[in-house]
Amino acid sequence: MSKQPIYEGKAKQIFETEHQDELLVYFKDDATAFNGLKKGTIINKGVFNNKISTFFFKLLGENGIPHHLVKTISDREMLVKRLTIVPVEVVVRNIAAGSLAKRIGWEEGKKMPSTVVELYYKNDDLGDPLVNDYHIKAMGIATEEQVATMEKYALQINNILSDYLAAKKIELIDFKLEFGVYKGEIILGDEISPDTCRFWDSETHEKLDKDRFRRDLGNVEDAYKEVLYRLTGESL
Amino acid sequence: MSKQPIYEGKAKQIFETEHQDELLVYFKDDATAFNGLKKGTIINKGVFNNKISTFFFKLLGENGIPHHLVKTISDREMLVKRLTIVPVEVVVRNIAAGSLAKRIGWEEGKKMPSTVVELYYKNDDLGDPLVNDYHIKAMGIATEEQVATMEKYALQINNILSDYLAAKKIELIDFKLEFGVYKGEIILGDEISPDTCRFWDSETHEKLDKDRFRRDLGNVEDAYKEVLYRLTGESL
Repeated sequence: MSKQPIYEGKAKQIFETEHQDELLVYFKDDATAFNGLKKGTIINKGVFNNKISTFFFKLLGENGIPHHLVKTISDREMLVKRLTIVPVEVVVRNIAAGSLAKRIGWEEGKKMPSTVVELYYKNDDLGDPLVNDYHIKAMGIATEEQVATMEKYALQINNILSDYLAAKKIELIDFKLEFGVYKGEIILGDEISPDTCRFWDSETHEKLDKDRFRRDLGNVEDAYKEVLYRLTGESL
Repeated sequence: MSKQPIYEGKAKQIFETEHQDELLVYFKDDATAFNGLKKGTIINKGVFNNKISTFFFKLLGENGIPHHLVKTISDREMLVKRLTIVPVEVVVRNIAAGSLAKRIGWEEGKKMPSTVVELYYKNDDLGDPLVNDYHIKAMGIATEEQVATMEKYALQINNILSDYLAAKKIELIDFKLEFGVYKGEIILGDEISPDTCRFWDSETHEKLDKDRFRRDLGNVEDAYKEVLYRLTGESL
């Protein structure tokens, strides 16, 4: 294995492996928000997110969603299939929060009368702008069939995760997914964690996600820890 | 006819008439840009836009597009059907310009490989945000069928206008449409003018539209005058 990452993102490093078709993902503690304008560290975030993502990928796999996880190999590392990433972020929203609340002028916490799916062009320089099917077609960044497949999976994933989390007294407010192509098929990639989802306690509506960091709400590490504990019973 | 407008927008006043089903539109010379942050006057803009819109509504009507124009009754006034406005602006783009060029990071003037349709939530307080079908459904501001009808008309209108303008040596870069419901049917409303379209001279690429005002390019009145002249041969 190479010592140099072939790619370093805001929260993860990616390394090549002996296997041409597999990559190693290393989860860092670095946290950023507002497209990198805010930076910090969340202690053990890498460990929490690796474990939480592992849990969700397995749950989704059991429910028929193809994903990139091959094997979790340490507290901070997972082995994944090498995808050609589709530069479209798929966001699913059940409750108004964050940029959606701002965009349409709804109060945070208001239930969406119907589930909202949003597509964002994954491009840091442009601030990941909202786009639609026509933009994606004109830019040539995904085919219509790929977009349809990603939206279909995103809605299925919403049902699977929402149901599971409800039983753990967590409300799934919204989440972001990234997909890639592996051997011609669309596969779920990236991570599913408090970095990429909004989780609220079902009863107190306490935030159990990266909004605690974004908005300086305190107890950031505790939130990640609590999510892992509710999902797996594991205490770190 | 009432002396007080029942509605006053940035560029037009709307009055009731003796007819319950008809309204009178008065085209003003007021010009605004950047959601009202920039304000000014374009001399005789109201006259130009009334005449240009009249021309386009008639052209579209002859080509099977239902629209709100009943009759043009003076230099600045038209009688229109009273629509229930759908608060969705439909934008069609053939060439990257304005907010699209910024959104996806394309140079202004680059031809879109495929026509782009965008939907904006008509809401000044929110700055008319880009939205998608899911937002529109969740907000309940238009039905799926209405959105499909508006998009279908928008693409037809693009073909009709682009072809007509090409013969007048004008390139149709992009344009904004507004629709409303009249007796249960979706009908084209608002105006079609250099305020709502980007027109470039086909050979020199000179801008013949409100971008001359937005960007302080000078010769603003001349641009509106030139468009009317090329369309109708009329000189003001």
